[in-house]
Amino acid sequence: MSRTVGVFVGSLRQDSYNRRLALAMEKLAPDGLVFKHIRIDGLPLYNQDFDSNYPDSCRQLKQEVEACDALLFVTPEYNRSVPGVLKNAIDIASRPYGTNSFAGKPAGVIGCSIGAIGSALAQQHLRNTLAYLDVPTLGQPEVFIHMTDDLIAADGTIKEPSTRQFLQGYMDRYVAWLERFLS
Amino acid sequence: MSRTVGVFVGSLRQDSYNRRLALAMEKLAPDGLVFKHIRIDGLPLYNQDFDSNYPDSCRQLKQEVEACDALLFVTPEYNRSVPGVLKNAIDIASRPYGTNSFAGKPAGVIGCSIGAIGSALAQQHLRNTLAYLDVPTLGQPEVFIHMTDDLIAADGTIKEPSTRQFLQGYMDRYVAWLERFLS
Repeated sequence: MSRTVGVFVGSLRQDSYNRRLALAMEKLAPDGLVFKHIRIDGLPLYNQDFDSNYPDSCRQLKQEVEACDALLFVTPEYNRSVPGVLKNAIDIASRPYGTNSFAGKPAGVIGCSIGAIGSALAQQHLRNTLAYLDVPTLGQPEVFIHMTDDLIAADGTIKEPSTRQFLQGYMDRYVAWLERFLS
Repeated sequence: MSRTVGVFVGSLRQDSYNRRLALAMEKLAPDGLVFKHIRIDGLPLYNQDFDSNYPDSCRQLKQEVEACDALLFVTPEYNRSVPGVLKNAIDIASRPYGTNSFAGKPAGVIGCSIGAIGSALAQQHLRNTLAYLDVPTLGQPEVFIHMTDDLIAADGTIKEPSTRQFLQGYMDRYVAWLERFLS
């Protein structure tokens, strides 16, 4: 059966390392798991005054999230937390009050950075938010990739065999996690 | 001596309760402490590709922060964390790499919400980020205000005597905190 995974990449940078990581995960996924990248760059800054008349771009984001079976968050760390640009998209899709578009969708949280901790602290903050949004997130393995330019190519090709093996292990656990909630 | 406090309100809502709280704090401040509200609503979503040619609005934000002696963050909680709109502004003022506009400026972190925990979890996440940005934040007292419509008026007038006394105590400690770093 075909399942759609909504992918949130937390960086807007054109050559984002986290986008490379997202593409790498997609290559490791089984047939039938379709990855759809959800854009977060065209959104306004969330304002609660929107709630009475939600902007079109915000409604579209909510519809895209709601059309997905599962979620994958691939995020860098900005200032020891979630990038504001990603948190803004999450805030928008969680609102207006009572219409949280994420609720119940199983998710993974992974990321990379050029620093040794590989976005670990951002991921912890993100898990706090996702728990509140009733998004069950896979706990282990954790994916804190210390990225270098030659670890994963721009098209998502993993160049390092041990990294490929590790990420394949993550994907297998991730798929099993989704099946708990989607079967 | 006159000192300027840059105020970040984490909500864009026109009748924001946190803006009311910020105005209330201003009324309790001693002469010579000037509060300047720093706008965060006209900013783009941060993109690292900006770093080579920072947008005017982002440079202006940095200049406004750099012109302040101290900071006061007054934030609601969105999904158990910092509002994306506030984090985005912080990300922008912290970049490009090596030009963190916040460094060394003493700060307070306070907030309110209509829920009982009064933005406590958002404030904790925000403190993680501010520590990384080398912003010394006053630890106690914590200000987690359970807001109601008749606690603080739209112009910042505090209607409840016990709340006024508590916030005056905060302001006194806040001023003493600033003096440690600015004298």
